[in-house]
Amino acid sequence: MALSQDELKKLVGYKSVDDHVTSGMVVGLGTGSTAYYAVERVGQKLASGELKDVICIPTSERTREQAESLNIPLCTLNEKSELDVAIDGADEVDPALALVKGGGGALLREKMVEVMAKKFVVIVDESKLCKGLGPGFPLPVEITPFCHMHTLRTIGKLPALAGCEPILRMGSSSNNKNDGDNIAVTDNGNYIVDLHFKTPLADPVAAANQLKNTVGVVDHGLFVGMAYQVIVAGSDGIRVAGTDGEKAWW
Amino acid sequence: MALSQDELKKLVGYKSVDDHVTSGMVVGLGTGSTAYYAVERVGQKLASGELKDVICIPTSERTREQAESLNIPLCTLNEKSELDVAIDGADEVDPALALVKGGGGALLREKMVEVMAKKFVVIVDESKLCKGLGPGFPLPVEITPFCHMHTLRTIGKLPALAGCEPILRMGSSSNNKNDGDNIAVTDNGNYIVDLHFKTPLADPVAAANQLKNTVGVVDHGLFVGMAYQVIVAGSDGIRVAGTDGEKAWW
Repeated sequence: MALSQDELKKLVGYKSVDDHVTSGMVVGLGTGSTAYYAVERVGQKLASGELKDVICIPTSERTREQAESLNIPLCTLNEKSELDVAIDGADEVDPALALVKGGGGALLREKMVEVMAKKFVVIVDESKLCKGLGPGFPLPVEITPFCHMHTLRTIGKLPALAGCEPILRMGSSSNNKNDGDNIAVTDNGNYIVDLHFKTPLADPVAAANQLKNTVGVVDHGLFVGMAYQVIVAGSDGIRVAGTDGEKAWW
Repeated sequence: MALSQDELKKLVGYKSVDDHVTSGMVVGLGTGSTAYYAVERVGQKLASGELKDVICIPTSERTREQAESLNIPLCTLNEKSELDVAIDGADEVDPALALVKGGGGALLREKMVEVMAKKFVVIVDESKLCKGLGPGFPLPVEITPFCHMHTLRTIGKLPALAGCEPILRMGSSSNNKNDGDNIAVTDNGNYIVDLHFKTPLADPVAAANQLKNTVGVVDHGLFVGMAYQVIVAGSDGIRVAGTDGEKAWW
């Protein structure tokens, strides 16, 4: 009998913890419906005593609340800058294991934590796999509010982003619903520009560099050269791509 | 008879406008005691009719107020993204015409404007000339407030910044006086880390790249590869370095 979407998410969430988290580690906890199960598993294993002396850094308030409810010891990057492993979902994954993340507007906080991890483990269902980043999910870019329309135009003209349509995110919060008349503001007081693509990004590395090196850009949702491993839940079971796994098959 | 410091600043401020601003241009106006005289000169020449159809983009509220008082037509980057020329001071200038700027905390706004100018003209007195950037003036870095002590530590460990001492700027505002018990906040709601150096930066280009590519860094006070010309006021008169001028002599 086929597993439900939620059961698949649970499988990869649990596997990421079982494969990568051992006692004494500092662990980054991601945000979202798949990462939820990784957090749950860490809590279970600490409660049972199978894991000891694990301390976790959450990537969002939501994850912090879930982890606290499970009595998982927490700290922030201010206390510990070096993580053994971070586990999180993604919105798109290409065959080079480059990701688009951060539809929820928490991309900066996630990237700050995950870039510091020795191993960044990505957990997704197979619907997130793509041949090229861009068309499947708008790429969010966090920018400073000052002269934001200028920055939006500047981003739209970057050579590596040719063909994108930049749209300022509106809404009452920084979630990815365009549900308001006001400009959406992130936790850091910045704005989000969503880049919409009809064709895939030819060179995500160049796109990431050009975005981050634009004056007025704080950060962006391209996570390039960061994933250690991608654990994928699909209709034919779980497969692993990256270090200690298969070459990307999609 | 030797000219006073103020008379020297006036000389380079006026010269920058006389040499580079013609009718019909979009002009970026810098901030500070030297840029003050460039703004004054633009106002004079518009009032006399020697310049026509010039529109200016100020880099600070202070400059906006001065320009308004002189009836200089103003706009922002939101209206015009391309500038013919921008004129501003600097805190340090090395022989490659790389600059440290932004002691006042307005570095992001200044860089946004000046990076868009076809010609960025720097006006300084000779006390700002140095063989190597760093020891003469702390290098400001604008960072996001989230986990700022982590970002401070991360910056301090960047290879191209070896030996720097990073200090979080305190104060009631984002000026460069450490005059308060609270963390200083920039116009954009960010914090400033001042990097103090005992020896000169070996590679300002690498330092600029490593800083801007750090997650949590919004921008920094290194202006590299931007200056078109540096106009220098010294005890033996005015000299010009850069395009259409001399090779750096210091």
